[in-house]
Amino acid sequence: MSKFAEVRQAAAATQTVAVQDEFWGRYIQLVQDTVIPYQYEALHDRVAEAEPSHAIANFEIAAGRRKGEFGGMVFQDSDVAKWLEAVGYSLSIKRDPELERQADEVIELVGEAQQEDGYLNTYFTIKEPGNRWTNLQDCHELYCAGHFIEAAVAYYEATGKDKLLNIMRRMVDHIDSVFGPEEGKLKGYDGHQEIELALVKLYRLTGEEKYLKLSSFFIDQRGQEPNFLRQEWEKRGRITHWTGTATSSVDVSYNQADIPVREQSVAVGHSVRAVYMYTAMADLARLTGDETLRTACVRLWDNITDKQMYITGGIGSTHLGEAFTFDYDLPNDTVYAETCASIGLIFFAKRMLELTPDARYADVMERALYNNVLGSMAQDGKHYFYVNPLEVWPQACSCNPGKHHVKSERQGWFGCACCPPNVARLLTSLNQYIYTVHGDTLYTNLYIGSELKTTLGGTEVALTQRSSFPWNGTVTLQVNPAGNGEFGIALRIPSWVETAEIRVNGEAVDVTGSLKQGYAVIRREWKAGDVIELTLPMEAYRVYAHPNLRADAQKTAIQRGPLVYCLEAADNSEPLSSISLSTDGEFTEVFDEELLGGAAVVRAAGSRVDEQNWNGGLYSRTKAAEQPVVVTAVPYYLWGNRGSGEMKVWIPERSSSK
Amino acid sequence: MSKFAEVRQAAAATQTVAVQDEFWGRYIQLVQDTVIPYQYEALHDRVAEAEPSHAIANFEIAAGRRKGEFGGMVFQDSDVAKWLEAVGYSLSIKRDPELERQADEVIELVGEAQQEDGYLNTYFTIKEPGNRWTNLQDCHELYCAGHFIEAAVAYYEATGKDKLLNIMRRMVDHIDSVFGPEEGKLKGYDGHQEIELALVKLYRLTGEEKYLKLSSFFIDQRGQEPNFLRQEWEKRGRITHWTGTATSSVDVSYNQADIPVREQSVAVGHSVRAVYMYTAMADLARLTGDETLRTACVRLWDNITDKQMYITGGIGSTHLGEAFTFDYDLPNDTVYAETCASIGLIFFAKRMLELTPDARYADVMERALYNNVLGSMAQDGKHYFYVNPLEVWPQACSCNPGKHHVKSERQGWFGCACCPPNVARLLTSLNQYIYTVHGDTLYTNLYIGSELKTTLGGTEVALTQRSSFPWNGTVTLQVNPAGNGEFGIALRIPSWVETAEIRVNGEAVDVTGSLKQGYAVIRREWKAGDVIELTLPMEAYRVYAHPNLRADAQKTAIQRGPLVYCLEAADNSEPLSSISLSTDGEFTEVFDEELLGGAAVVRAAGSRVDEQNWNGGLYSRTKAAEQPVVVTAVPYYLWGNRGSGEMKVWIPERSSSK
Repeated sequence: MSKFAEVRQAAAATQTVAVQDEFWGRYIQLVQDTVIPYQYEALHDRVAEAEPSHAIANFEIAAGRRKGEFGGMVFQDSDVAKWLEAVGYSLSIKRDPELERQADEVIELVGEAQQEDGYLNTYFTIKEPGNRWTNLQDCHELYCAGHFIEAAVAYYEATGKDKLLNIMRRMVDHIDSVFGPEEGKLKGYDGHQEIELALVKLYRLTGEEKYLKLSSFFIDQRGQEPNFLRQEWEKRGRITHWTGTATSSVDVSYNQADIPVREQSVAVGHSVRAVYMYTAMADLARLTGDETLRTACVRLWDNITDKQMYITGGIGSTHLGEAFTFDYDLPNDTVYAETCASIGLIFFAKRMLELTPDARYADVMERALYNNVLGSMAQDGKHYFYVNPLEVWPQACSCNPGKHHVKSERQGWFGCACCPPNVARLLTSLNQYIYTVHGDTLYTNLYIGSELKTTLGGTEVALTQRSSFPWNGTVTLQVNPAGNGEFGIALRIPSWVETAEIRVNGEAVDVTGSLKQGYAVIRREWKAGDVIELTLPMEAYRVYAHPNLRADAQKTAIQRGPLVYCLEAADNSEPLSSISLSTDGEFTEVFDEELLGGAAVVRAAGSRVDEQNWNGGLYSRTKAAEQPVVVTAVPYYLWGNRGSGEMKVWIPERSSSK
Repeated sequence: MSKFAEVRQAAAATQTVAVQDEFWGRYIQLVQDTVIPYQYEALHDRVAEAEPSHAIANFEIAAGRRKGEFGGMVFQDSDVAKWLEAVGYSLSIKRDPELERQADEVIELVGEAQQEDGYLNTYFTIKEPGNRWTNLQDCHELYCAGHFIEAAVAYYEATGKDKLLNIMRRMVDHIDSVFGPEEGKLKGYDGHQEIELALVKLYRLTGEEKYLKLSSFFIDQRGQEPNFLRQEWEKRGRITHWTGTATSSVDVSYNQADIPVREQSVAVGHSVRAVYMYTAMADLARLTGDETLRTACVRLWDNITDKQMYITGGIGSTHLGEAFTFDYDLPNDTVYAETCASIGLIFFAKRMLELTPDARYADVMERALYNNVLGSMAQDGKHYFYVNPLEVWPQACSCNPGKHHVKSERQGWFGCACCPPNVARLLTSLNQYIYTVHGDTLYTNLYIGSELKTTLGGTEVALTQRSSFPWNGTVTLQVNPAGNGEFGIALRIPSWVETAEIRVNGEAVDVTGSLKQGYAVIRREWKAGDVIELTLPMEAYRVYAHPNLRADAQKTAIQRGPLVYCLEAADNSEPLSSISLSTDGEFTEVFDEELLGGAAVVRAAGSRVDEQNWNGGLYSRTKAAEQPVVVTAVPYYLWGNRGSGEMKVWIPERSSSK
């Protein structure tokens, strides 16, 4: 283990980031104080109001500590892994002996559940011991392994404890003996991508090539003919795990396995699977220098963000398959936009930033983070949206079966609890998303208050970022190199600003002149105490959608900085569909201290037609008179915290001269 | 049979109507020349491009003429019945010895398939002989019987042949021995209403009270506790016919059996089932004078037409259950609006007109007929829509699974072929929907050229209607009483006109003064050769939807007379969502002789934003410039006849002063 310790120390020396931010600090605190303990209880089936998770119980049964039946989904193990991963990140922010003790106990249990040959999966160990690796399409064995690898890396990096790491290295050795190009091994891959990106993390920690090779194998093999998932399906009598019965066909595009990954150019299928895969592809493209893989990543990124992404950073237009549909098909009310998919998009964005310093990746990361992801969690940390709609009519959610998947209020811990632990692990590892380094240049991707220690151009640098995001656009960076040194500091100029100001020690910088792929790059000899001041006008503005995006045609959305806004019934009378914004009305902004922890509220001139003005039946030749109205918009991420009511992001816009 | 012959002669003496109309004549001819022969071939599995129907084959197997397995849906028999019913109506328009021979052969076969005890249903006879009457919820035994009863009545009335009538009287006697309030009989009813309205027809033909009593029993029993459908479901081990497996719950509101019919006030569940039931309820309310039943009918009618009906007369907002959802939930693109449901609404409207002479029932009848129903059939009579959307993006129909049920082009004869034969039987019996008589007053409900013979106030009257609907609003009625006589003639003033002119023998009538429940009632001493001229301004106009109808908010639809218009890609460039209508633009109208048999086309000023004017990515702060454009609208019923493309009925409306 001394080798890892060295690697780890080297990594630590390269870069550490500690978030110190008023806005995000509160959410990270919420995860630490509430979400992680709550999830711990939930995993142990001790949350009275939630369906039992069975997750810990499954491990206890597999470990032989107790008798019982497997419970929960086939991938239930992954909830334990995601919790451990979040604990790892949390402990790296702040040591907590009691939490560490809980985690150590869970890891002890996981170790006991591991089989002699290294195999680890409670579903197959308890329920179908003879059927390991016979249904990769449905059964998530490698997916669960992947999450435990991520947890092992995070926990080791936080605590230096290697027990889980060793468990997972044994599991990976076992996997390596089952899958691979060699004669007699399975030429397969998981139905749900995850292990690919996890193996890269394991490689980055340990430096062991075999992990990178295995990850590449899974990526390269996917979509090759003869198709593994189809062959496997035929072999098991076309049985699907979900019903236990035979199916007439199998759609491997759902698993992004219809064509080889390097030939893919359109995001298809289950959206979480897709972005987890693209994340690994971008990792491998960077680590192996594989140009065809890189261009595939760029194509897929462009397809998503130019044609298949909601303004909130949500992806996945249908709940049927939780999937992408096709270009410009982004319905606001039958939407899926799963929380996990946006988290996966953030993973993908981070890898693209590591590959190429282009601010458009960070723009999307910021969009998904401040809107779809942040909005998924209630202010109490105990209620979540899986589906993040852009338009909600609560009665339709209950009375129109095509919208049953959309909820108007966040739900407690679910039967399939993928999203809440995913939010927890993202927020506790937010420090990893703020900066990237290319050469001797530091790129700031997110404006989140933080303390950075890194090395740039051979100089050790401490950098303190102070940010008043998302309410104000003033950011200061205090640069403290160990000695004077020349290196670059690149500040992302978000695509949502029209002008930006930068001063270094009070002196204006030519922003336009220094702009490169969306970053203002300041290269100079830095000395201790240098201060960069970035001013981004944080004002409300209108956004329009591409004319091909039919659902948003002739409508406008309101943004303020990175925040997308929405109308809610709590502030505007229903039906919200009666409201239109005036094209020429000014926006006014007030900071409402009382609104759910404080938030900037936007008011705009508009008009509405009411039932009271309507004289006809269902249809009439007479149009109802419209009345001027002040429209109130609140940040999207806060929606649904004030009871059930209508909500909408896209609002018709009309000339006020009626 | 002499008794029936008398009844029939009496009925014939009361009223005969022969359609002689340029517009509808063409469709009736199409049904006679093409649809009925095509359906005959389809029933015999001789249409190469269609899936085999199995319908006739099932009867041949049940009759012992050949060996084989039952094929098709559990209600496949009803396709034969609906065809026979349409043949009956067709023969009453024009005798056709060859068609009559075909029908007689089919009836012969049906008779051979009837069991000793009168039971008639090929599914149970062939496949589950021991399970008769054990799954009323799913298996449509009474539904199929109902359709054969309707066919028997129609065929007898057209030809005087009573073979099918006797077959069905035996079947009804058998049903009467199984169902009823008496000890030992089933207290049940069918999962799919239909026999209730059919038994009323049988009663009207024969005058036999027992048929009316049985119909009332089914209606009265529905929704009573203990719930028959639930009990039956429990009894058969909760098995559903559709999958052969147990279900965890049963939703009897789908069958309108959750509460007694007299307590129902909101249309729920499967929409065809619903309107078939309401039709029978209105029949029974009239024939029995049951006031609670009548008020229930009015409540349900009002709920549908004030809150749950598309502008095209379509009903059913979701394909999941082919069902109503809830008030004001009328999405245009995920719509169901099944053809059969609109036909059922027309049935219901006819019964409400027989109950009460109120033009609002005829207004809806006209709306459904000229739009949803007429639009369901292709100009070749061989292709049909089941689902009649108000907004279509063809790519979404194929690539978004939430819209797979919506088609952008009419399909051939389907696996579940309910709609095409329903259209055939409606169009061939259109003569039954034009007039109703209350007391000595004749009510004109539809302006369709026709020859009427009836008796009013004791005077035999012949009346010739000449109509240029739907293209022009001029209607003349030539009244020819056998001798001078006083009686009333009531002309419906459609809700879509703002003014109407009536002249009798050239002399103006005070329309407003004579208006009663939507009809201008003209009462006078009529003499042979009197001519009534009705002039309804047939011009294009805008229609707006109730503010609570969120899907149509801030949009307008174009109507011209009874016809709803739509935009199609064939006339306007895609995406149609880019188009808005100017609030103050005039409409221009031209009659395009070349357009699918000739149609009035409406042009309007509008504006559009194009991809070429768009400089951003998916989202942008900069709005694209709009350009003025001439918008072309065509009658909705013609949509989808010029290849696959976008279509929409509701168009955003904006002030032209940008």
